[in-house]
Amino acid sequence: MSHHLGVGQGQYRPGSPIRIHLSVPAKEKEAFFPLPTLHSLAALGEITESDPAALRTEEAFREALDGVHVLVTAWGFPRLDAARLALAPDLRFVMHAASSLHWLVSDDFWATGLPVSQAGVAMAPAVAELSLGFTLSLLRRTHRHDHALHAGQSWETAAGSERAREIGGARIGVVGASRTGRRYIEMCRALGAGVRVYDPYVKAGDPLAELTTGLTDLLATSDVVAVHAPATPETHGMIGADEIAAMRDGTRFVNTSRPSIVDMDALFDAVASGRIDAALDVFDSEPLPVDDRWRGLPNVLLTPHVAGATADSRQRAGRIVVAEIRRHLAGEPLQHALTRDDLARMG
Amino acid sequence: MSHHLGVGQGQYRPGSPIRIHLSVPAKEKEAFFPLPTLHSLAALGEITESDPAALRTEEAFREALDGVHVLVTAWGFPRLDAARLALAPDLRFVMHAASSLHWLVSDDFWATGLPVSQAGVAMAPAVAELSLGFTLSLLRRTHRHDHALHAGQSWETAAGSERAREIGGARIGVVGASRTGRRYIEMCRALGAGVRVYDPYVKAGDPLAELTTGLTDLLATSDVVAVHAPATPETHGMIGADEIAAMRDGTRFVNTSRPSIVDMDALFDAVASGRIDAALDVFDSEPLPVDDRWRGLPNVLLTPHVAGATADSRQRAGRIVVAEIRRHLAGEPLQHALTRDDLARMG
Repeated sequence: MSHHLGVGQGQYRPGSPIRIHLSVPAKEKEAFFPLPTLHSLAALGEITESDPAALRTEEAFREALDGVHVLVTAWGFPRLDAARLALAPDLRFVMHAASSLHWLVSDDFWATGLPVSQAGVAMAPAVAELSLGFTLSLLRRTHRHDHALHAGQSWETAAGSERAREIGGARIGVVGASRTGRRYIEMCRALGAGVRVYDPYVKAGDPLAELTTGLTDLLATSDVVAVHAPATPETHGMIGADEIAAMRDGTRFVNTSRPSIVDMDALFDAVASGRIDAALDVFDSEPLPVDDRWRGLPNVLLTPHVAGATADSRQRAGRIVVAEIRRHLAGEPLQHALTRDDLARMG
Repeated sequence: MSHHLGVGQGQYRPGSPIRIHLSVPAKEKEAFFPLPTLHSLAALGEITESDPAALRTEEAFREALDGVHVLVTAWGFPRLDAARLALAPDLRFVMHAASSLHWLVSDDFWATGLPVSQAGVAMAPAVAELSLGFTLSLLRRTHRHDHALHAGQSWETAAGSERAREIGGARIGVVGASRTGRRYIEMCRALGAGVRVYDPYVKAGDPLAELTTGLTDLLATSDVVAVHAPATPETHGMIGADEIAAMRDGTRFVNTSRPSIVDMDALFDAVASGRIDAALDVFDSEPLPVDDRWRGLPNVLLTPHVAGATADSRQRAGRIVVAEIRRHLAGEPLQHALTRDDLARMG
């Protein structure tokens, strides 16, 4: 990999053509790169393209990456191990348009010293908004009303006897002061909610520091618990059976983050008993089988892992890709570069 | 009714006992009057109570209203016509804890000159929040995802191919700058939406004046159309077949207001065709029959006329009732009094 070491300013000779390779799934290409964004990218270099699914063979990979300086990925690209990297000797920068990177970069990759950036920040508002929509639905019992009316239950049964709650004045407990968590908190507070946060990494001086509390206290005193933590070894199973038992009857539970943080069996039991309502975008088995247990519960709101996938977030990601590549080519500091340590912390 | 004329300051003799009669449906009483609120009310006078459903006979009515100065109503109270008013000769003030009053007050009532106040303002935040929750669900296609996953469709089918939209940057068209509409607008703007308003009664100098546009323009250029207009003869059928045709494909339609404003047949056709998605809390036939046509559509989100009925709004209304009765008894200006003209305009 020594040919990759020492990359940085001055790596591009003035006047020599820059080659940028776009390899995002065909159905996502226009979402990330509508024409104006594509034109901005084309102003930075010569664009070639491939469907990542077509790069499984070394031959196809070599041909696609031949002479490529900047690689743009999203999902389904082959893992960048030593064998693949050897087929892309001119590579100077990997710009990942989506969020999760673990599957893409390898020990071999980090050993090259190649810079890698990620446009995950584009997704935070989208995820936070879905979490907010979930929160409003659960507080208002909209999901229960809607399921009952669609199922042909009587108007009175569908109305039920329990009172809906408003977000203005509700106590929202946020697990994880991530980028997404912070945006969610901002929106909840703008709508009048009281917010508490559990995150052992929030430091003194952080604007959220005064909102922090212990996990058990948070769970036991919140009307809504929303998970916005990364999936790391440390957060694995953090919301276990004891933590779910700590939530009061009638607590609403929102997860648009990662399923591994939650003991999904314990959560299922609490939701199936009617003690807790839930809204879930993530599941421990995705795609969710057609006969999955969650699908039969009237007090759960379900979406198929779409929290980050809005038209708006894709367009933001495309614009971040172009801006970051421009910085790379100009030798300016990258704004979205990740180190191996960053990645371990982000999950 | 002449014994009621000329009521006002000085109508209560110092030292003589004030009698307050609470007649709200039994299942709503604690919602409006939790103990602290009830204690505040009891500090103002001697409270008697009845279930309004038990007042159908003149005898029961006479007995309940005997010596009553202040009457608190919500739903189901007998209409205050001349015959009933004659049975309540000491009545000085009617405080309505809920919103709609048309069914309660009569020509005879207005002729007495008795003051009447209404706590409808308590409901505005609740209705606006449900409308916001509807808006987020429709923009994010949450209702479609959820219905498909509950119906056992495959993960991929449930995900669909159309992109969700975020409220940040969405164009929201609001029909009616009512109290509820204004609160909805405030929340949408706090979340980054662009708002336009149709309301011919918004005057120059109103903070919303710069957002107003024509109805057809509003319908043709909005991602979400939300109805917050009163049901009056003027608004009846205002959103008709032509107006629904003016909305672009993919428009989201939200109604937490009144069904009479909308041609529900034309709306049904547009929703059934998949051209428009809708979230509805109100229907032209309530309670909605168990085999109603709306219940079968996967792209409609349904709730059983619960927009104003939160725990929070009931408690706010109870506190307004107490504060307004205190003002009445102290001879201070009422803050929530309605005239006959107000009522005609409010619908």
